[in-house]
Amino acid sequence: MKRFFLLLIIIALTLNLKAEDGYRLWLRYDKIDNNIILQQYRNAISSIHFYGSSPTLIAAKNELLQGLRGLLDKKIPVANTISNHSLLVYTKSSSVVALHTGIDYVALGKEGFVIRTILAEQKNIIVITANSDIGVLYGVFHFLRLLQTHQNIQKLFIKTVPNIQNRILDHWDNLDRTVERGYAGISIWNWHTLPDYIDQRYIDYARANASIGINGTVLTNVNADALALTKDYLVKVAALANVFRPYGIKVYLTARFSAPVEIGGLKTADPLDAEVQNWWKQKADEIYQYIPDFGGFLVKANSEGQPGPQSYGRTHADGANMLADALAPHNGIVMWRAFVYDVRAQKSNENFASPENKIDPNKETENIASPDRFKHAYNEFKPLDGKFRKNVLIQVKNGPIDFQPREPFSPLFGAMPQTPLVMEFQITQEYLGQGTHIVDEDPLFKEVLSIGTYEKGKGSTVAKIIDGSLEEHTVSGMAGVSNIGNERNWTNHPFGQANWYAFGRLAWDHDLTSEQIAEEWIKQTFSSDKHFIDVAKKIMLMSREALVNYMTPLGLHHIMGTGHHYGPAPWVSNAGRADWNPVYYHRADSAGIGFDRTATGSNALIQYKTEVSNQWNDVNTCDEKYLLWFHHVGWNYKMRSGRNFWDELCFKYYSGVDSVKWMQQQWNSLKNFIDEERFQQVKMFLAIQEKEAVWWRNVCLLYFQTFSRMPIPAIYEKPDHTLEYYKNLKFPYAPANPS
Amino acid sequence: MKRFFLLLIIIALTLNLKAEDGYRLWLRYDKIDNNIILQQYRNAISSIHFYGSSPTLIAAKNELLQGLRGLLDKKIPVANTISNHSLLVYTKSSSVVALHTGIDYVALGKEGFVIRTILAEQKNIIVITANSDIGVLYGVFHFLRLLQTHQNIQKLFIKTVPNIQNRILDHWDNLDRTVERGYAGISIWNWHTLPDYIDQRYIDYARANASIGINGTVLTNVNADALALTKDYLVKVAALANVFRPYGIKVYLTARFSAPVEIGGLKTADPLDAEVQNWWKQKADEIYQYIPDFGGFLVKANSEGQPGPQSYGRTHADGANMLADALAPHNGIVMWRAFVYDVRAQKSNENFASPENKIDPNKETENIASPDRFKHAYNEFKPLDGKFRKNVLIQVKNGPIDFQPREPFSPLFGAMPQTPLVMEFQITQEYLGQGTHIVDEDPLFKEVLSIGTYEKGKGSTVAKIIDGSLEEHTVSGMAGVSNIGNERNWTNHPFGQANWYAFGRLAWDHDLTSEQIAEEWIKQTFSSDKHFIDVAKKIMLMSREALVNYMTPLGLHHIMGTGHHYGPAPWVSNAGRADWNPVYYHRADSAGIGFDRTATGSNALIQYKTEVSNQWNDVNTCDEKYLLWFHHVGWNYKMRSGRNFWDELCFKYYSGVDSVKWMQQQWNSLKNFIDEERFQQVKMFLAIQEKEAVWWRNVCLLYFQTFSRMPIPAIYEKPDHTLEYYKNLKFPYAPANPS
Repeated sequence: MKRFFLLLIIIALTLNLKAEDGYRLWLRYDKIDNNIILQQYRNAISSIHFYGSSPTLIAAKNELLQGLRGLLDKKIPVANTISNHSLLVYTKSSSVVALHTGIDYVALGKEGFVIRTILAEQKNIIVITANSDIGVLYGVFHFLRLLQTHQNIQKLFIKTVPNIQNRILDHWDNLDRTVERGYAGISIWNWHTLPDYIDQRYIDYARANASIGINGTVLTNVNADALALTKDYLVKVAALANVFRPYGIKVYLTARFSAPVEIGGLKTADPLDAEVQNWWKQKADEIYQYIPDFGGFLVKANSEGQPGPQSYGRTHADGANMLADALAPHNGIVMWRAFVYDVRAQKSNENFASPENKIDPNKETENIASPDRFKHAYNEFKPLDGKFRKNVLIQVKNGPIDFQPREPFSPLFGAMPQTPLVMEFQITQEYLGQGTHIVDEDPLFKEVLSIGTYEKGKGSTVAKIIDGSLEEHTVSGMAGVSNIGNERNWTNHPFGQANWYAFGRLAWDHDLTSEQIAEEWIKQTFSSDKHFIDVAKKIMLMSREALVNYMTPLGLHHIMGTGHHYGPAPWVSNAGRADWNPVYYHRADSAGIGFDRTATGSNALIQYKTEVSNQWNDVNTCDEKYLLWFHHVGWNYKMRSGRNFWDELCFKYYSGVDSVKWMQQQWNSLKNFIDEERFQQVKMFLAIQEKEAVWWRNVCLLYFQTFSRMPIPAIYEKPDHTLEYYKNLKFPYAPANPS
Repeated sequence: MKRFFLLLIIIALTLNLKAEDGYRLWLRYDKIDNNIILQQYRNAISSIHFYGSSPTLIAAKNELLQGLRGLLDKKIPVANTISNHSLLVYTKSSSVVALHTGIDYVALGKEGFVIRTILAEQKNIIVITANSDIGVLYGVFHFLRLLQTHQNIQKLFIKTVPNIQNRILDHWDNLDRTVERGYAGISIWNWHTLPDYIDQRYIDYARANASIGINGTVLTNVNADALALTKDYLVKVAALANVFRPYGIKVYLTARFSAPVEIGGLKTADPLDAEVQNWWKQKADEIYQYIPDFGGFLVKANSEGQPGPQSYGRTHADGANMLADALAPHNGIVMWRAFVYDVRAQKSNENFASPENKIDPNKETENIASPDRFKHAYNEFKPLDGKFRKNVLIQVKNGPIDFQPREPFSPLFGAMPQTPLVMEFQITQEYLGQGTHIVDEDPLFKEVLSIGTYEKGKGSTVAKIIDGSLEEHTVSGMAGVSNIGNERNWTNHPFGQANWYAFGRLAWDHDLTSEQIAEEWIKQTFSSDKHFIDVAKKIMLMSREALVNYMTPLGLHHIMGTGHHYGPAPWVSNAGRADWNPVYYHRADSAGIGFDRTATGSNALIQYKTEVSNQWNDVNTCDEKYLLWFHHVGWNYKMRSGRNFWDELCFKYYSGVDSVKWMQQQWNSLKNFIDEERFQQVKMFLAIQEKEAVWWRNVCLLYFQTFSRMPIPAIYEKPDHTLEYYKNLKFPYAPANPS
């Protein structure tokens, strides 16, 4: 029977060989399947007038012609005289255009654009215009998106300017093409054949990014390799930069702090050493010879084994400023990561492990009496506020620990008013089901961006800190850790593309709603059928909460398998350092569960403004979704639902699984709405997601039950394996594990 | 200027986004672009009659319908009554077909098929028929190939039966998806998402293989991991087997000899130990529960660090027979590799290193007085002839060393009449320019297959030994080490696909000429334009000889970089064991160059039949293409060209580079004949090939000149770098290096 089912799949797939392989992402440009709209568009665009011939404008023109030819299934003529229903594309400086359109170019800045229907010389025309070539390219992509999403283009009045200046993908890609936390094959950067071989993917990568406004890419892993800064690699980087330049994308590299020793032959990398400073200055000069518009450096220093200024008794500011000084003459920036939790600098003797879940004493751990890792970045960086050069940005992960399914916002947001902070989101789903779960991350991004820090009272959202408006910074940035690899469809899971898309769109405009972004993406990627959109959107919008429920509900965090982070392993107590252990984070014991971060515990809450900490400090006012982040809660604690905590925990885990089952049913109903290939892909992935959701639920409840000693309510199906069974599962080749 | 050039490429490529990405391989089925032929085909096929509904026949039917719809741009009706110009597809047992066609089914065997035009009931019809479902599928692919290559189908009279029974791809793919010697991304087997996720690639892999008659695949690396034999992996293997089964492809695994210890908990893997024998028997039984048609094991034992029976004082026969006995009840086979050169079993004190190129004494080498590795496999295996079970095949690399650009045939061919020998070719281009050189391997394969071993006098070709006809074996095999990875076009270099194709076609019919195979492939892959075919075929057919000339002319061998085998490094003398060192193989000194394998040297030639060795023994009759394989030749030795040896060496190296330049010119002339995307890809790769050919030439001549002390003739351009410059080049991340 099973074999018969498989056969059906094979046959179905075989019939669709020219079907959608996902390579085109959201830039599909297939003929519009609604005849009324198609006719409207054909009528509205009778000819194209394109002014300018820079590489960027040529790219824009090609994209427009190709897009229209596909979408309208008609070759639109490129004409010299303006007629009714002409489409005009030009920059402000274009001397050929003498139309008086009343466009306020000043408000558009360097990257903004206008798309507007105007009446000129009694002709109804559409203009796409901007100050710069790249603004025009962004406008063209936006215009194509309007058509792809079947928008009415009769009376266009669009003006848009990005909220954030530096909208960057961080690739954790190593020079050997492995990708740390990458679940879609290996790196698309084929360093071995660069600079001579230019893969078509490099070009399509640039197109995809430009289409959603991404304007920077850090090519190399934050766990950095100094070789990337040698001449051999710089010529390769330059080749990529040449491909990306017309698309407005700058390249960045990660700077290994010890590079002066490793590739420079110096005896030290001390940032206050004149020779070291000079080495970096000369290195920067060399880089800009190859890449005149090089973006700058991203640095992970003194964290998880990476070298840094503290190795020489210097501060993060000393290190960052040295690099900033080297880059400043070329207008480069330093993005210095606040993700640090080396314990060396701390002298605390805090130890929160209860007697029942002590860290395994047989395993040598680096620091058994570890201070609360939650607090570390703030403790390290807040005192340095104001001490960084103007071209240094501090890059902060959205939460205080590490890209968990849900984290409270990092207390650094709102705590460093003199320093521009880059938001670091993780697009790749290290802790979000990795390569096989549908998790629409946009609601996660929005949740963080929209929360109030109370830095300057109400309305002091994280978004306003990131975009620089609250603290009046002239530079701003948002970074997303890429989920891109060399699999045919870039992200392996078809819905992984949605997270790349959402990151770019949000970095451009963080006021866009999750609904808007999901709907845009679905229409461009799959279908404009209303029923399909409704269902797919529902699946997407509930997916992240479903994942939180079946993985880490009610504020649980960091209880996944060691190293590869695949699957649940809440029992682990023998990891290399105390704060790598799940038992360190959940602190389950016979009394209850959760990490007390109030004044009776690690007191991490003191790092937030009072308006925030007051709410979270009190177990009775604390939002239950953050409960175990801040409180050790008794198993019988009464939740707002009326259930005791244990029953609530069971309820959450079971409802997480139920949500996935619901997603499966919903998806199955969409079979006839899209191509068979992607329908089957998603269906197979959802089956994996369901299986793994059950695994998470069973493991966590069976394990925590050993502390609560309370039954799983009888209304739920019983776990079908023992805890021992689950503990014995091994995953020696789980993907993308750097260790 | 350079940037402008690059821009042109970008623009060109951008315009061709729906162009050929190479994923479809040779199964493109685009509409036939010759209208006369198209009309002929449409006339010749008015309806299709397809009998049977097994998974294989359904796959055949889908392929046929899809292929015809594409090629003829017309939906051919599936009909119930036979009319004029019907196409009938059926197996012998099909009861619906009562036509008296006079087809001799006995001669077709299990896999052969007939395609024939017949007159029946006064109707002109085409039949595709076979004894078995798989024969029909092969026939369908062959018929589609006839159309793809624009053959006349008016009077078809085709009968074809494979020469060789087991036509197998060996994947050197590890469980972590790295591929040893793979230059096209990572493994297409995504073990992590198996068995639940069936990648479309698995299906298309099966289609591509079936289309050229490949009927087996060894999924795992010969440097084996015992985990592949655990239940966790067997269910994954079974999922792949389910996909491949309809396409007539059996799966095989590599068996790690020490698996009983590593995953079985036994204390020994001694093949004569009853517990060990029982463990393998039970393991085989378990495997066949999951995969009822499992093919068997491929084993690399006691070679390059792999465990084996000799670790327990047993012979290769002891080891192979134990596995064979475990598999025999299920009709499985063992392919036991003869690629062994562990020195432990040898007692020789031979040492051929001259005083001038001694192995580096500062480096600890395993066995400085190494015997000639050339002789090892023969010495080890010939005495075992007749001692293997009936279901054991000994798998022999085509040459005695290791897939060099040119090797004399392995002396084992013709030396083991009682044992079926599997030919092992390497499709992946480990020593043939790796991922970036055009090297059509078909002439290499043919060169080996067509040579005479004189085992039973004239006509005793290697081909006849492999296909079993000379020694009347009932089982036969040919294996090709795969060049397939997860890059979009499977092989990274578009011409890499040709080698996969050629291997399959030759394994089916080793009488096909290189010209035929190249032309077939070009037509299906690129174009049926006569000029294009002529030029592309010329490039292909000369490419292997060009590579030999710019890498290792006149019998040079094994002088590439250590470990990664990328680029030339003839100076290396510090590798881990003596016979890993280039100086061990070329033995250049002030007197001359080359490895004396005559009676005055290692006497390896004694391993050949006298008719062969006599010719190669005498420096004056030895084919110059093998010269340095067998003779240490003086720098002033007079070659048949009239040049002295040094000048001939220079001539060969320079003409190798010239050939590549010629290939570039020729390719450039083809710009308007095919899609821009693949044209540019090949052009960029040829630029790399030219650069690396110059590198090989310069390095080798500068290095060997330090011994010959003779000038490079003035007519040639001088090397533009010094030997020191080349020696300092480093390739820390050269791809696919297993060490």
